[in-house]
Amino acid sequence: MSTKKIGSQTVKLEHPPKIIATTSVVGPKEGQGPLKDSFDIILQDDTNGKDSYEKAESSIMYTAISETIKKANLSESDIDYLLAGDLLNQIISSNYAARDLKIPFFGLYGACSTMAESLSLASLLMDGGYADYIIASTSSHFSSAERQFRFPLEYGSQRAEASQWTVTGAGAMLLGKEGNYPSVTHVTTGIVKDYGITSADNMGAAMAPAAVDTIYKHLEDTGRTPDYYDVICTGDLGLVGKKITTDLLKEYGYDVSKVYEDCGAIIFDNEKQETKSGGSGCGCSAVVNCGYYYKKLMKGEISKMLLLSTGALMSPTSSLQGESIPGIAHAVSIEFI
Amino acid sequence: MSTKKIGSQTVKLEHPPKIIATTSVVGPKEGQGPLKDSFDIILQDDTNGKDSYEKAESSIMYTAISETIKKANLSESDIDYLLAGDLLNQIISSNYAARDLKIPFFGLYGACSTMAESLSLASLLMDGGYADYIIASTSSHFSSAERQFRFPLEYGSQRAEASQWTVTGAGAMLLGKEGNYPSVTHVTTGIVKDYGITSADNMGAAMAPAAVDTIYKHLEDTGRTPDYYDVICTGDLGLVGKKITTDLLKEYGYDVSKVYEDCGAIIFDNEKQETKSGGSGCGCSAVVNCGYYYKKLMKGEISKMLLLSTGALMSPTSSLQGESIPGIAHAVSIEFI
Repeated sequence: MSTKKIGSQTVKLEHPPKIIATTSVVGPKEGQGPLKDSFDIILQDDTNGKDSYEKAESSIMYTAISETIKKANLSESDIDYLLAGDLLNQIISSNYAARDLKIPFFGLYGACSTMAESLSLASLLMDGGYADYIIASTSSHFSSAERQFRFPLEYGSQRAEASQWTVTGAGAMLLGKEGNYPSVTHVTTGIVKDYGITSADNMGAAMAPAAVDTIYKHLEDTGRTPDYYDVICTGDLGLVGKKITTDLLKEYGYDVSKVYEDCGAIIFDNEKQETKSGGSGCGCSAVVNCGYYYKKLMKGEISKMLLLSTGALMSPTSSLQGESIPGIAHAVSIEFI
Repeated sequence: MSTKKIGSQTVKLEHPPKIIATTSVVGPKEGQGPLKDSFDIILQDDTNGKDSYEKAESSIMYTAISETIKKANLSESDIDYLLAGDLLNQIISSNYAARDLKIPFFGLYGACSTMAESLSLASLLMDGGYADYIIASTSSHFSSAERQFRFPLEYGSQRAEASQWTVTGAGAMLLGKEGNYPSVTHVTTGIVKDYGITSADNMGAAMAPAAVDTIYKHLEDTGRTPDYYDVICTGDLGLVGKKITTDLLKEYGYDVSKVYEDCGAIIFDNEKQETKSGGSGCGCSAVVNCGYYYKKLMKGEISKMLLLSTGALMSPTSSLQGESIPGIAHAVSIEFI
């Protein structure tokens, strides 16, 4: 085992980088939900003035990144690396956002796990001494995701009870070295898990085993118990996946019920906003963490959180070819130290 | 500027990881080309016994990775991280290969730059002390790529002169710390470049400016001249892109003509095999580097090479929406030290 790893899947950072600025940009529907006061920018128009939903999504990721750089009084040339990914085929939201930013760029694909994946790699690169500043970012858009993964909106398809509503939004986090900000202290990298779920209307159930596995490994590797954290928050399991995760972790001997939350479960008023099992998409974990939880950390309302994002690693093609939906989850400890 | 960076985009590794094993798996057509003797596994059937081209592609990536682990007399549980990506929507080749390997997994998307992208990140993570062993891998498949990016093969579309032939193949590299193997000494991370090319039949021209930019930055950052290297090899610019790259670098004051090669230009006999401007796809750079060049390094025929892979960061959707094709290139110095 290498020196900086503790346990099988976790790295304890020796020089924990600080999250010195974040930006959350959301669409109009997210801006009417219960977390509306915690988002930085709420769009009045989910096309953001662009002529396609895909271009809109790319533009909101660009906005999240460029606003974050501005908040820290930096310029693009100060940023050593940009790590970003999104849900669209060939991650075009990230690629076209990166085109307009002259920053060395690593493109990622981890489906809805991308906020934790980008933050994990960014934290390791910072800790290793390869950068002074790194941006981690991701996005999703309800209308670009629906037509790519399910049906064109114009079909007016009925939504299943376990289905989730892809968040329109983008988040960006800027890592630096100085100041009174929360630090990334541990990175637990996930293994792909597949329990045979085949329905794209039940992503929460497909991703829950991955979340359970990564939370379990994180707690085992660090020797921590769930109550070490003020919050353990998964990305977008929604109401169905959240319940499965809580129940399965109990079977593994961990009762997370007092500290466990899920970004997908809280971003919408699921009854009133008719979002069924809750929010989903890379943007869900991104905006709830860059908006709601980062503000709670900065206000001192919480001081230790375990941020997880969970990804369903399927494609419409793999589903049509009869494949089940594998999931992955990455976890990052964020603490004031 | 952070300590380990030299110049604007390059890291000089303090503990250069070694490439202790590689595997190249290719399809029947690649196995009839001029580099056939340098590949580890040549498939007799490009479906690899699977019932879809996508499943075939995933299975050959799995083969490349698992054979590489075997060659080093290791098991999956010895590998700290797997970094992999491919061309398919939602990188399903990599995701389903990772599902069958119980290794902490970071999914990447860099289009055909993925061999250099995965090797770059793997090298930084190794150098930083986060792992004893990491696998970097990528794949492509002619038949899964054609139907996703251009036309179903059944249409029998004519091929343009500047078009390239997507390589069916997968490569995997295993990084370790010990032994008489070539090391990764420098990592130069690319910036997205877009010169306004819009034709998916001319990817070489779209990607060449990115290759030029990254080679130029690498030489400026390290203070090296092209003749420091025995070979500077780009991934899949093909004949058209190779010429543009050579000419543009001359304008920037660097004559690379004596040491410059392109994997896409040499993998096929372009006249006899009717591959027009040459090979392309993530697999092109992967199999030529994991096969042909790695064997040359191990035999002592070359001792210093600059490996670049170049990616065209478009999607069929972005092309239909009128977007041009941005490119990116990452470079990795591989040397016996």
